Amino acid sequence: MGWGDLGVFGEPSKETPNLDQMASEGMLFLDFYTASPLCSPSRAALLTGRLPVRNGFYTTNAHARNAYTPQDIVGGIPDSELLLPELLKKAGYVNKIIGKWHLGHRPQFHPLKHGFDEWFGSPNCHFGPFDNRALPNIPVYRDWEMIGRYYEDFKIDQETGEANLTQIYLQEALDFISKQQASQQPFFLYWAIDATHAPVYASKRFLGTSQRGLYGDAVREIDDSVGKILKHLQKLCISENTFVFFTSDNGAALISAPKQGGSNGRFLCGKQTTFEGGMREPAIAWWPGHIPAGGVSHQLGSVMDLFTTSLSLAGLQPPCDRQIDGVDLLPAILQGKLIDRPIFYYRGNEMMAVRVGLYKAHYWTWSNSWEEYSKGVDFCPGQNVSGVTTHTQEEHTTLPLLFHLGRDPGEKYPLSFASGEYQRAMQRISFVVQQHKATLVPGEPQLNVCDKAVMNWSPPGCEKLGKCLTPPKSDPKKCFWPH
Amino acid sequence: MGWGDLGVFGEPSKETPNLDQMASEGMLFLDFYTASPLCSPSRAALLTGRLPVRNGFYTTNAHARNAYTPQDIVGGIPDSELLLPELLKKAGYVNKIIGKWHLGHRPQFHPLKHGFDEWFGSPNCHFGPFDNRALPNIPVYRDWEMIGRYYEDFKIDQETGEANLTQIYLQEALDFISKQQASQQPFFLYWAIDATHAPVYASKRFLGTSQRGLYGDAVREIDDSVGKILKHLQKLCISENTFVFFTSDNGAALISAPKQGGSNGRFLCGKQTTFEGGMREPAIAWWPGHIPAGGVSHQLGSVMDLFTTSLSLAGLQPPCDRQIDGVDLLPAILQGKLIDRPIFYYRGNEMMAVRVGLYKAHYWTWSNSWEEYSKGVDFCPGQNVSGVTTHTQEEHTTLPLLFHLGRDPGEKYPLSFASGEYQRAMQRISFVVQQHKATLVPGEPQLNVCDKAVMNWSPPGCEKLGKCLTPPKSDPKKCFWPH
Repeated sequence: MGWGDLGVFGEPSKETPNLDQMASEGMLFLDFYTASPLCSPSRAALLTGRLPVRNGFYTTNAHARNAYTPQDIVGGIPDSELLLPELLKKAGYVNKIIGKWHLGHRPQFHPLKHGFDEWFGSPNCHFGPFDNRALPNIPVYRDWEMIGRYYEDFKIDQETGEANLTQIYLQEALDFISKQQASQQPFFLYWAIDATHAPVYASKRFLGTSQRGLYGDAVREIDDSVGKILKHLQKLCISENTFVFFTSDNGAALISAPKQGGSNGRFLCGKQTTFEGGMREPAIAWWPGHIPAGGVSHQLGSVMDLFTTSLSLAGLQPPCDRQIDGVDLLPAILQGKLIDRPIFYYRGNEMMAVRVGLYKAHYWTWSNSWEEYSKGVDFCPGQNVSGVTTHTQEEHTTLPLLFHLGRDPGEKYPLSFASGEYQRAMQRISFVVQQHKATLVPGEPQLNVCDKAVMNWSPPGCEKLGKCLTPPKSDPKKCFWPH
Repeated sequence: MGWGDLGVFGEPSKETPNLDQMASEGMLFLDFYTASPLCSPSRAALLTGRLPVRNGFYTTNAHARNAYTPQDIVGGIPDSELLLPELLKKAGYVNKIIGKWHLGHRPQFHPLKHGFDEWFGSPNCHFGPFDNRALPNIPVYRDWEMIGRYYEDFKIDQETGEANLTQIYLQEALDFISKQQASQQPFFLYWAIDATHAPVYASKRFLGTSQRGLYGDAVREIDDSVGKILKHLQKLCISENTFVFFTSDNGAALISAPKQGGSNGRFLCGKQTTFEGGMREPAIAWWPGHIPAGGVSHQLGSVMDLFTTSLSLAGLQPPCDRQIDGVDLLPAILQGKLIDRPIFYYRGNEMMAVRVGLYKAHYWTWSNSWEEYSKGVDFCPGQNVSGVTTHTQEEHTTLPLLFHLGRDPGEKYPLSFASGEYQRAMQRISFVVQQHKATLVPGEPQLNVCDKAVMNWSPPGCEKLGKCLTPPKSDPKKCFWPH
């Protein structure tokens, strides 16, 4: 989902009454970011509180490339990384992930080996259907074992767009919450649903209900589900003990528009890019009785802050043996304070841009290659800002492109290099960047090697289902990351 | 102002708490339109309930041109047009206009000759300063006579952007409302402030307070003023007897960006164009105790509807001797009904586009000429939708470009001509267009002739102030309308 997909963020159809109400009862973050314009690195950053370049969720196969965890990825979340659920366990929390894990699908990367107690969902995206020969269909797990595969046991009708996955994920969430409430144990629920990712789907009740087509149907179903989860917490009388945060892992995929693409509002470009459309996210914090209703925050926030903030809520300290990029947002959320911190925009291990206050400096620009672009891959459809949305990798490290995101949230008008404003802003930004780079210790890159042999051929539990497939011979190669 | 300038419509700085609250207490219109992408014709349409092509506020000097009322315009609102205040008088209303009249500045066009009882403001835009030789500065009137001129007696500091005009207009509004409440007479207040038009200004208290720069300061001041007006109505205990509507006369002028340009959200292009960015407007209806709080309407609305709706509120019928384009919105506002009606997008006397339901068909496309564009006049900065944002006048009358504004509010993806959806939608639209054109009787065009002799050289009252200037010899010419 993108920033502009919610009514409260100006989607012209205004079809998200539950999320809009969540905002009116809680706090809306207008300047909240993900840690990468792509899914896997963002999710790794959320769960580790660390930039992908530190936690290993990046590639060095080529310069400034987005990488994720397709079926043939060899890497995954390193054991050396401490995940939020691992830490929360120390405070007695029961942790569940529902939906897309995306931090590696080989046995050593299994979420239950990284702090989660329960899992219902899949290790990869719901791409497909596959023929189980060249590529296996994606498995769906319950805890340690697969219980079926997408398109086989968990239907997704590509003709009609019908699939009841969000309903299944919703029911899992409600059941888990009920169980935890009954057992009086504190819990962490990571409700990481697949929707609205392409191929877009919605369940029958929502199909055709949106002005926005199938994508809008999916948004409505998510909105409805979030509303049901919040109401469930209230019904169980635990809403005042439960901190809820809604956000997304990257901007809307404009490449999927108009049929399956969402909205990043007036921000430039979308998913895959380090423009605002790729990384600024809808974000709402909700905690009745604690967060003042109807609050709006301009705190620069990041999905990595959810790591640190969650630890803080559980009375825990973040690990002190490593660099943590997330900050504790509670002062911003509960007392309306503004914490001064930068936002870094990475593509692979290249810091493409940085935001400090209202200024954003691009050290590198790249939409995607001419070669891709000429084939119709367009991450900025209908948008072309001369010298900004570039189809070659453009370096600006000596004289970054600078934007004032208050006056120019659409990143259309770079400030004049000769202006006093440019000089003053860049002085401050350069210092921040220098500090950041001086202390940066990149992790071992996990997204470099691909091998068809590691695909989901025979996940644990496949025997019981008769769904084991024979993997091809191992043939590790450099993964190809085109953008 | 543009659709996207309000927090409630997704402006990322969210700096319009009063307008946002007005929406939460009233009804938000998401699909509300002006009648022209330019000021004068829109305002003429609002006050007559009729399309500019009917009421004469258009030009035939060249094909599909936007025209308005600069100082040298010879025409103005014809006596044959019936204005809202003229009609409201019959129901005992006292009518005041505060701010920009813009329906002609020659004596016969004076607002007090067209139904208003009081006027504080100016006949033209606050362009300037002028040298009073080539061009006179724009006069400010109280009722029948000028009381000074912009930049002379009503300061606008172009260096700092400071001007207290909005404050003066606000005080005028509060005083008028108090007076009417005291005299127990029903009133119609047309609060037609100049801000946020370029040259943008704000009063000292608001300067530098916005994240968005001077334009944002001006928006904040308007927001604050609207809040004060609503509170004043409440304090006087007449809010439940007073219908208030907030909207704008055209989309934000992107040509003035980034320094003085506003936001049309994710809509295409801006002022001067018949894309959504040029004509979809922020719109809020407020009437405590009558309009359900927090309502959201997808009713296709138009500024012309304010004419018909106001008459309805006053218990009057619209004139039956002429075509009225405005519809009575009360069923939509009070009962949540949806009235089926088209929206026409005109440029001059050319119907450029039409919206029927969620479909919008462009019969002509034109952003502006190559000649202008190459000189830096850009009404769609950073936006270039191939075949849509054209720099030559492109005719599509036999095969209109069709967009689905629910799935594609940004007008980026024309539907395939071959699709069944295209065929079905165009069938319906063609019928609507045929009906419209068959009954259209254009008015006498008022915006064709310009003459420096008719400028504001010696407005009534100039003698008392020693501000009479000598007009040059009359030399009527065709006005030049470049876009």
